[in-house]
This record gives sequence, structure tokens and C-alpha cells, in this order.
Amino acid sequence: MISQERLQAQIDHMDTITTHAHGAKGINRVAFTTTDWEGRHYLLSLMEEAGLEIRTDAFGNVIGHRRGLREDLPAVMCGSHSDSVPEGGNYDGVCGILGAIEVARSMEEDHFRNERPLEIVLFMCEESSRFGCSTAGSKFMRGFLKQEDLYKYHDKWGNSMYEVLQSRGLRPDDIETCHYTKPLAAYLEMHIEQGKVLEQEQLQMGVVTGIAAPTRLKVRFHGSADHSGATPMAMRQDGLCAASEVILAVEQAAKNQTDPPVVGTVGVIDVDPNAMNVVPGETGIGIDIRSISQQAKDDVLRQVISQTHAIAARRHIPVTVEPLYNDAPVPLHPAMIRFLSECCEAEKASFKQMPSGAGHDAMNWASCTPTGMLFIPCRNGVSHAPEEYADIGDITRAVRVMERVLRTLSRADVDLTHC
Amino acid sequence: MISQERLQAQIDHMDTITTHAHGAKGINRVAFTTTDWEGRHYLLSLMEEAGLEIRTDAFGNVIGHRRGLREDLPAVMCGSHSDSVPEGGNYDGVCGILGAIEVARSMEEDHFRNERPLEIVLFMCEESSRFGCSTAGSKFMRGFLKQEDLYKYHDKWGNSMYEVLQSRGLRPDDIETCHYTKPLAAYLEMHIEQGKVLEQEQLQMGVVTGIAAPTRLKVRFHGSADHSGATPMAMRQDGLCAASEVILAVEQAAKNQTDPPVVGTVGVIDVDPNAMNVVPGETGIGIDIRSISQQAKDDVLRQVISQTHAIAARRHIPVTVEPLYNDAPVPLHPAMIRFLSECCEAEKASFKQMPSGAGHDAMNWASCTPTGMLFIPCRNGVSHAPEEYADIGDITRAVRVMERVLRTLSRADVDLTHC
Repeated sequence: MISQERLQAQIDHMDTITTHAHGAKGINRVAFTTTDWEGRHYLLSLMEEAGLEIRTDAFGNVIGHRRGLREDLPAVMCGSHSDSVPEGGNYDGVCGILGAIEVARSMEEDHFRNERPLEIVLFMCEESSRFGCSTAGSKFMRGFLKQEDLYKYHDKWGNSMYEVLQSRGLRPDDIETCHYTKPLAAYLEMHIEQGKVLEQEQLQMGVVTGIAAPTRLKVRFHGSADHSGATPMAMRQDGLCAASEVILAVEQAAKNQTDPPVVGTVGVIDVDPNAMNVVPGETGIGIDIRSISQQAKDDVLRQVISQTHAIAARRHIPVTVEPLYNDAPVPLHPAMIRFLSECCEAEKASFKQMPSGAGHDAMNWASCTPTGMLFIPCRNGVSHAPEEYADIGDITRAVRVMERVLRTLSRADVDLTHC
Repeated sequence: MISQERLQAQIDHMDTITTHAHGAKGINRVAFTTTDWEGRHYLLSLMEEAGLEIRTDAFGNVIGHRRGLREDLPAVMCGSHSDSVPEGGNYDGVCGILGAIEVARSMEEDHFRNERPLEIVLFMCEESSRFGCSTAGSKFMRGFLKQEDLYKYHDKWGNSMYEVLQSRGLRPDDIETCHYTKPLAAYLEMHIEQGKVLEQEQLQMGVVTGIAAPTRLKVRFHGSADHSGATPMAMRQDGLCAASEVILAVEQAAKNQTDPPVVGTVGVIDVDPNAMNVVPGETGIGIDIRSISQQAKDDVLRQVISQTHAIAARRHIPVTVEPLYNDAPVPLHPAMIRFLSECCEAEKASFKQMPSGAGHDAMNWASCTPTGMLFIPCRNGVSHAPEEYADIGDITRAVRVMERVLRTLSRADVDLTHC
């Protein structure tokens, strides 16, 4: 009953929900912006069409409930997100949530009698672009973020998360009511790989074995803004030169750590006053380090921090190093990995078991329920960019696997918890 | 008749003409903005109080004319600017134009009978912060910039110089009428040093021997914006990493060139999309190289360009290198240097002859008339920053030297041209 045409039409519609203000390319649905809210509204309408009972929580997460024959049993949850990075693509998150809704719709059309209830969840603010904090929606649902965090995180315009929730008519003062405390039978999420492994190995699906959660820090060099023409090289405290050394140190430290691999990125930089004829003064960068090995990640982190301090000392520039967070890599449930692999085989999808380099909402659920993830290839491995693309055939195949997974897991006699 | 109190009050008033919108610090009078225009209006009123006949040209330059007994003789010109870099200081430019007006006012109060006419000029858009083009006002007056340049230069909001002039009610279509074609007897400009030499040597004044005009280029790496978690280090085309190598190459090449010295700066950088979890794609930087030796500057420029291409090739990132301009260093007039030195001695000011590391409007006049510059110390050598500061005693002393210079040069029998 899974409809490729319907999925394609829904993806096409989501593709129109963006803004190209200020010449922005690709998809712009940064969390809680007007376009993000428009996308949420559309997905909410699809959930209703799929016969789901909708509720929203204080953070704005949307939960579509499909009643089970046994409402007393732990539910099976399946979800993803629809916010984007600035100038991102239309597949990251979108495939997963549209797929989950399509499965519910197929069950509804098929009058499928699920014993366990099903929770289809659209998570808010999965991307860290706005607040420097990823998977915020699922973190609030799991109680990993608290009321005080609403004041801690700010966007680049200086708005706190609290203020942003308020401006959307959400309920920041009741944020702790987001906490999802009911037991779950399982959690499933389908997502584009955001890498090139499946494409290069010509595989149709990936069954994720573990998630490489990010470690992040902010580094700020308090350089001295001086005249670029009249300040001799020896008298400078150039914040951007110091930052450049750190940027290359992050790259080198990550490159050196090959087994298990680590990726290290400086994706954001701000320079003050950022003028052609002024030596850069205050210069800030954001560092993102990831690995499925906590130890490898910590090794790289230690090198980066110690080199940052050495660079600052040598250049006589005061520096502030602020750890944002250091999330532990998340292994996924062995029984779930086996079960998802069997479902891929049953649907005749070629696949491999593989780690996820990117973080996902799934990582927050792995500590409370058997959690699994399915990957599909994306063209050239490109994600978080306008060129992001996934094939509709790959998407539809994955949704068929999802349906098989969810139909089976919704049976009262199937319980992965004890596997 | 030079009044320290009056100069102090005028400096204090200019200090209030700024904006602190968006948390901006220091002085914000970027060319043709509201605050720049407010400052221009105030200086225009001071010129009127000093008895000057005001005219403005198509670019907005303000010329205050003090009639001479012999209007047929070439005039003596004295001027500076009042626009600032973003988050700059209140002394860069301001001391020179206030000093010039104060000399005119003192002559007026003293009923001084100058034989040659005097032209006190407030130049527009001296700073390159807005359009990446420095001393634009004097360049139009000298005919070095043309009508077509109004379409070539754009600010970061995408406005062309043409549009900006129009929005200020100026006359971009008549821009060629700015060209100042009358012969001049001399050009004088007083300015803060914007370096630490005078302060460290405890001198009150500098007589400038030559001006190290800037060479500038834009470099743009066309990197690939990919997911920071899922893109292995070996598969990246990170625009910011490439730019960081160039930033350090500019610094190193300038440091290596010590005699004659060169300064090299990357003051501006923009990264797309500039998000924590995206490998930087398009990354642009602006490079500024200066020396009083054209050859030394060219040597550094050649190294920087060749290293930029090597870095881009090694990283497999397409790169665009766009030269903005390569101005020749400007030696100042030997007779003027001698004469200014004599005037410093006569006013009992300790001084030294020294090069200027920064560009000034003066450099545009040196090819048509004997041109001289006077420097005063500024605290810690800091300029183009909120901490910029010059002592009122130093300023007043310099204005007294200026008055002596201008009274003498305005005599019909003094002609440095033939010295």
C-alpha cells in the first residue's frame, strides 16, 4: 500500500517550503522560522489524513498516535525531523518523517490492526544551526534538556530558546511536560546516509550499528584590532591568524586519527570588525568533532585544546575555550540490528551494517528502548547543501522495509527488549 | 589664535556622532551612512563659522574656500576625512580636518591676509571598509576614478557606489565634474600615526617621507558544503581550511620581508553557510599588502598568489584570485619634507622623518603638487579600533605647526614647486 507517487508529491511539496531571501540557495527551514513552521503545518495535515490522533508538546514536537488494539502495551515510536540547516537539502529528516507517516497511512488504508499503539513523531529543532544544540526536540522529550537550558541557548540574533518558543506560541514555562516517560517497545528512524559509503558500494540500504555523537566547543581569540597598514607584523595580535592555526590543527588531528576514524570541522567563524584594512581582533570559531569511538574523539579533543592554548600563548593572545557538549557515541540495539537486517533481506534490498557519522534523534532513545536506524544512499554523499538528493526508488523501498518492521514490532508477542 | 578648548569641544562633539546599533562599539561612521552624513553636516557648519565659502562636488566632497588676495595664484590645499571603519576611533581623519578648519578660523579671527587662496577639503569615503576602495573622494577629485567605477564597486549589501550616491542626493551622473584641474601650490594633511613609532620614541610629531599604498586582492575558494559528521576527512573540499592556509601564508610572507618591511593582512572573511555542522563551502578572504617599496610588495604578492594556487591545487578546490588594485607607494616632496621639518623646529616640536604605513588622501595629490603630511602619536599605536586616542596637547601643537605651514605657503613669493 506504500505509494511512491504520494511520497514523491509530498517531497515535491516540501521542496517548495523554503525562502530564497538574501539570495539563499537550497532549502532554508531553520528551526522555528516561518518556513520551518509552514513545513510543520503541512506534515501535521498529512498526519491527520493518515488517521493519526495529533498532540503537540510544550517544545512543539508533534506526536501522531495510531491506536493499538492493546493501548496498555508499550508503543512503537517512529519519527524524524523537517527543519534544515541554512542552504540545506530537502531529504535530510524529510524522508524519515514522510516515510513514517506513509506507513501509518498505509496501515489505515489497509485497516491494519496493530496490537501495540504506534507513535509517529515529528521532532522540532534537530539541526544545531540555530542554537548550537542538536536534536533539541527529542532531548526535551527524553528529559536530557531542562527548563534552564531554554535560557542557556541563544541564536545569532541574540534570542534565547525561551523567547523563540514564546514567539511561536509554544509553552516554554511548561517545558518539563515534554518529558516522555511511558515505556516504549522500540524506536525506528529512517534517514539519508549523508555520506558516500552506500553509493560507492552500490548498496540500497544501511542498517546502522551505532551513532557518532558530536563533541563541540567554542574558541574565542581576544585579538587586537589595529590598522592594517601601520601595525608592523611583530606588533600584532591577529585573532584570525590564531584561529587559522587552530582550524588547520583540528583538520590535522582528525586526519591523523584513522582507526577508528574521527572527523573534525570548523564550520563557523566570526571576525571583528571584519574590515579590509583592520587587523582582526576578536575572532570566534566553533569546533565539531565526531567519532563512534569516545576514546578516539577524546584524544583528538585533547590535542585540539592543548594546541589552541599553545597557539594563543605563542601569539600572546588571550583565548577562551568553551566546551558546548561532549555527547557519548551511541551503540544501537543488537537485536534491532539483526531484525532490521532480516527485514531488508525479506524486502530484497541490498544492504550493509554501518555506523552513522552524523547524530540523529534516534540516539536519544537508544538508552530507553531497542532503537534502530535505516539509511538510504544520497547522491555524491552530499547533505546539508542544496545539491542533497535521494532517489525516490530508494526512498520507497526503505519505506516498505519500515512498514514491515513496524507491522511486526506492533505485535504483542514481539518484544526485542529481552533479546 | 589656535584654540585647544575649541578643538577639544569639536572632537567631543564628533565623538557623539556614531551609532551603537547591534551592540557596535566605538565610532561607526562608515562612508555615506546616516552618521557619516551627520558628521559631514557638522563639519560643514564649522567651515561656515570659519568664514569659508563652501562648495560640494558630485561625490559629496566638501571644499571650503578662503579667498586670497591673489585669487589668480594656485591655491594651497589642506584636508582630511571624517568617515570611519566599523567600530573605529574618533581621531583617524577627524584631527586633520578639524585642524585644517581651525587654521582657517584662526586666520579669519586674526584678519590674516593670505595671498594665495586656501582650499580646506573634507574628502568623502576615505576608508575602504564600505566599497573595498580607499580614498575614493580624492581619487575622483584627481580623476583617478571614473564614471564606470561607480558601477564596479559594491558594498556588502549589494549597493553600487552609484546607488549609494543617488540615495544621498548626490550627482553620480556628473561624477566627472569632481575632477579638480586647477593647479595647486601645495597639499598638506595632518593625521594620527596609526602606529607606535612616535609613542615608543617619545616624539611629538612625524614628518612623512612617503606613503605605503596598499595592494589588495580577493581570494575565493569554491569548496563543497558537506555534512560535518558524515563526510570523511579524505573526501572534503573545505573552503575554510584552504583559506586558513592562505591567511598564514600571507602572514609568513610579510614577516619574512623585513628590509624594506612589508605588512600583510587578511582582515575580512566570509564562509558559506557558516554553520556548526556543515563543512565550509564557498569561502572568501580579502588580502591587503603594504610597503613603501613597490618591489618588496610585489615580491610578497607573487609569493601569496603562487601559494594560493598551490594550496587550491593540493586540496582540489577551485579558486578565484581577483586583484582589486595595486597602488604604487608614494614618495612625498623633498622640499616639503624639509619645510615641514623647519616648521616643527620653529614650533619647538620634537619630531622625526618617517614613512607612513597607511594610505591617505595625500597620496593622490603628490603627483600634481608638493605634498606633505604631519603625524601625531596615538596611544599604543592603536587605530581603526574603539581604543584609538590622541592627546589634545599633541593635536593642538600639530595644528599650530599647520598654521605656520599654511601661512607661509600662502605667500605669493613662496613656491616649493621649483625647489
